Amino acid sequence: MYDMTIQLHADGDKCLYEQIYEHIRQEIKEGKLLAGERLPSTRSLAEYLQISRSTVDYAYAQLQSEGYIEARPYRGYFVCPMEDLLQMESNLGASLQMNMCDAGADLDEDKSSKKDAVNYLYDFSPNGIDMSGFPFGVWKRITKNILTDANSELFSQGEAQGDYDLRLTITRYLHSSRGVNCTPDQVIIGAGNDYLLMLLEKILGPQVKIAIENPTYKRAYQIFQSFAYPITTVDMDENGMKAGRLEKEDVSLAYVMPSHQFPTGVVMPIGRRRELLKWANGGEERYLIEDDYDSEFRYRGKPIPSLQASDTHDKVIYIGTFSKAIAPAIRVSYMVLPEKLLAAYRRSCHFYSCTVSRIDQRILNEFISEGYFERHLNKMRKIYRGKHDLLLECLRPFEKKFTISGEHAGLHLLLTAKDYTQEKTFIRAAAQNGVKVYGLSDSLVAGVPENATILLGFGGLKNQEIIEGMNLLKKAWL
Amino acid sequence: MYDMTIQLHADGDKCLYEQIYEHIRQEIKEGKLLAGERLPSTRSLAEYLQISRSTVDYAYAQLQSEGYIEARPYRGYFVCPMEDLLQMESNLGASLQMNMCDAGADLDEDKSSKKDAVNYLYDFSPNGIDMSGFPFGVWKRITKNILTDANSELFSQGEAQGDYDLRLTITRYLHSSRGVNCTPDQVIIGAGNDYLLMLLEKILGPQVKIAIENPTYKRAYQIFQSFAYPITTVDMDENGMKAGRLEKEDVSLAYVMPSHQFPTGVVMPIGRRRELLKWANGGEERYLIEDDYDSEFRYRGKPIPSLQASDTHDKVIYIGTFSKAIAPAIRVSYMVLPEKLLAAYRRSCHFYSCTVSRIDQRILNEFISEGYFERHLNKMRKIYRGKHDLLLECLRPFEKKFTISGEHAGLHLLLTAKDYTQEKTFIRAAAQNGVKVYGLSDSLVAGVPENATILLGFGGLKNQEIIEGMNLLKKAWL
Repeated sequence: MYDMTIQLHADGDKCLYEQIYEHIRQEIKEGKLLAGERLPSTRSLAEYLQISRSTVDYAYAQLQSEGYIEARPYRGYFVCPMEDLLQMESNLGASLQMNMCDAGADLDEDKSSKKDAVNYLYDFSPNGIDMSGFPFGVWKRITKNILTDANSELFSQGEAQGDYDLRLTITRYLHSSRGVNCTPDQVIIGAGNDYLLMLLEKILGPQVKIAIENPTYKRAYQIFQSFAYPITTVDMDENGMKAGRLEKEDVSLAYVMPSHQFPTGVVMPIGRRRELLKWANGGEERYLIEDDYDSEFRYRGKPIPSLQASDTHDKVIYIGTFSKAIAPAIRVSYMVLPEKLLAAYRRSCHFYSCTVSRIDQRILNEFISEGYFERHLNKMRKIYRGKHDLLLECLRPFEKKFTISGEHAGLHLLLTAKDYTQEKTFIRAAAQNGVKVYGLSDSLVAGVPENATILLGFGGLKNQEIIEGMNLLKKAWL
Repeated sequence: MYDMTIQLHADGDKCLYEQIYEHIRQEIKEGKLLAGERLPSTRSLAEYLQISRSTVDYAYAQLQSEGYIEARPYRGYFVCPMEDLLQMESNLGASLQMNMCDAGADLDEDKSSKKDAVNYLYDFSPNGIDMSGFPFGVWKRITKNILTDANSELFSQGEAQGDYDLRLTITRYLHSSRGVNCTPDQVIIGAGNDYLLMLLEKILGPQVKIAIENPTYKRAYQIFQSFAYPITTVDMDENGMKAGRLEKEDVSLAYVMPSHQFPTGVVMPIGRRRELLKWANGGEERYLIEDDYDSEFRYRGKPIPSLQASDTHDKVIYIGTFSKAIAPAIRVSYMVLPEKLLAAYRRSCHFYSCTVSRIDQRILNEFISEGYFERHLNKMRKIYRGKHDLLLECLRPFEKKFTISGEHAGLHLLLTAKDYTQEKTFIRAAAQNGVKVYGLSDSLVAGVPENATILLGFGGLKNQEIIEGMNLLKKAWL
């Protein structure tokens, strides 16, 4: 049984929950806590340390979401088994700030809904975002100032990788918020993830065999298809992509969303991450593409570190975007290349000029480096958390008929039917009540789900709309 | 001998020169003037019509630059032979306005010069442009107004092809200035030509065999190389790409710059254009890419119509950009797809989201539709014409040793050595005098030129700099 002695410092610069989290994490990493070992219950640890139980709850939830421990119903918390051992970046946890933020996914607008004849009252699109919190005033002021000072230099063509200042700002931001280790040299700025993937194809060359998660972000799948890449779909389990499959398949690239998988919401635990990295290390030409699309929106605990942060062998191609965290119209994404691929980029792709205007780059640089981005994210996290909690509350009556998953992060939840009603039956019934919902099968690239799963996005709806929409869904489904 | 009777209308809405030009062009098209027939001398026609000789000069120069007639030294003007006959769009000439304007090439910044240890006093880069004439004030005001009225809609993701309003504006502009026939549906807006070519690769599929002009715009060559397209280089003659070669080669795509070839400055005459179109019509899968990169800067006569304007079989993929005509930092280009390729785009590439921010699209739309773009072009044409004429004047002493070509359009001239001095010898001698010049071999993708050719760009230099730079070149070379 676990020794509950933890030295807590009430006046330190770390809050109690962080101290507990870090202590246990350290014990696991140092092998003092072994796989399968049971942790004390949150109640007993809280009593022992004379602190609130919710503080321990938070620490455990964080350890759980990062894959260090797992909860077994009616039995308690246990240390997870780990693939041995890729050295984690040593002070990663410490470098991750509570002001966790990240770039948002370049998600497909729901184009079909535009064409739809039905006039929906409420649209639970998983891609909806809330622009009402966007600091238009600040953005306008920055734009105005930049144009006032603008000289012809700003209108001349800039560096192919993007302007150095913005690349430096992004490097710092990614390090502090996501633990990403890179230099500005490794960063390539481009107009959207789609473009950066196109550029990556040119760097990696044609006919690369790629593995993708199933279900996955559909547009990425379409893009890899358009590259004529042979695609292997790998099913997900509750820890993410089944990494064991990779060794058996003849693939050299895997596209994953470890911090918050779309659409399942799965956070890949550290054990699985290590398996993936181990696979990548097993071949000279193997790489992982980490699409870190919306990890800034977590509503409980600390941020989940990026996979790139755990990568010590230069195997992760990290991609992020400002489209979700700022606005879809801001066409700015970034890609962090491992050194070896950077050399390939310089050799064979240096002539592709940057796709983002220098003026836009300058505006964004100022928006981030002056602290507006962080403030905006904090504000949005609070707004989205409120919507998330409200939707969860509204979902209570649905629990008899559905299993709810994907909570505590992102901008949508998932409802999986307990019976065998078909997905389209739910969607049709919702539509008849004026509500647009989305099926998981939109994101499936192979196979058919046993039980229907519906995605309920809440980002683009107002609180009142969530309540009213859910009332209509109650009528439709219960 | 040609019947000189031309009905001139002094009070018509067309100037005399236009009336002469159109009359003769019509006679050629209708077969009343046959290939090889001699035109009256400019002097005799002017006397006959009782007008100024320079008016006739202009009309002839225009007919010549469009390939209807040719000048034979000491003999006069003769009607050119034509490939028979693809029906030209009937009222094309009429639809082309004198306020001719077009988008500028996405030319490579001269990166090597940045790294160069030499500190040049004067840089005759063919890619230099003059930003001093840019209406920063107008641009700022439009930006400010758009942001003031901005609602969250503007920050949401727009249509994949680009916003309809801008596509409509571009359609109108291309029709009036370049005779391009298309609907807004056929227009795709993207962040630079490089990106649009990447997208085109996805539309056309991999492994398309392409023919390019030699010499050509080097970055396009590099891009096609990065597509792993098998590339056939086709030499230029004084009329452009030797179209006869295409039938002999196993290619289905040809990349050409008919209105003002880079770097040679060749304007492809109508006969050669028809040969190209005829070749394209000979195969279901054959297409021509027309890169219409800087045709807005012509200093004599009427604009050269686009190749797309003569295309009646949907065989021309038309690409243009605002990078040269407005500013390199404005990352907006456009591609006009033939209907068949538009269908392929919709089938297999609709999911690629637009790479230009909606705010930038809106600014540009206003800049064009409010008439600022046209005014800007007219102003820049005047500024560049002044520099062009000055450089020509400065080149007089060089005529003993060099042949000058590429005049009357674009932003550079070419000097071809009459002796066999090597290109690098000229470049080195210039560098020793503090002047940076560029060799044609930078643009050659195959072969070695018999005589050294130097490109002298004047766009980025002030008048005084042109004079001083040319004085130094005189010291270096004469």
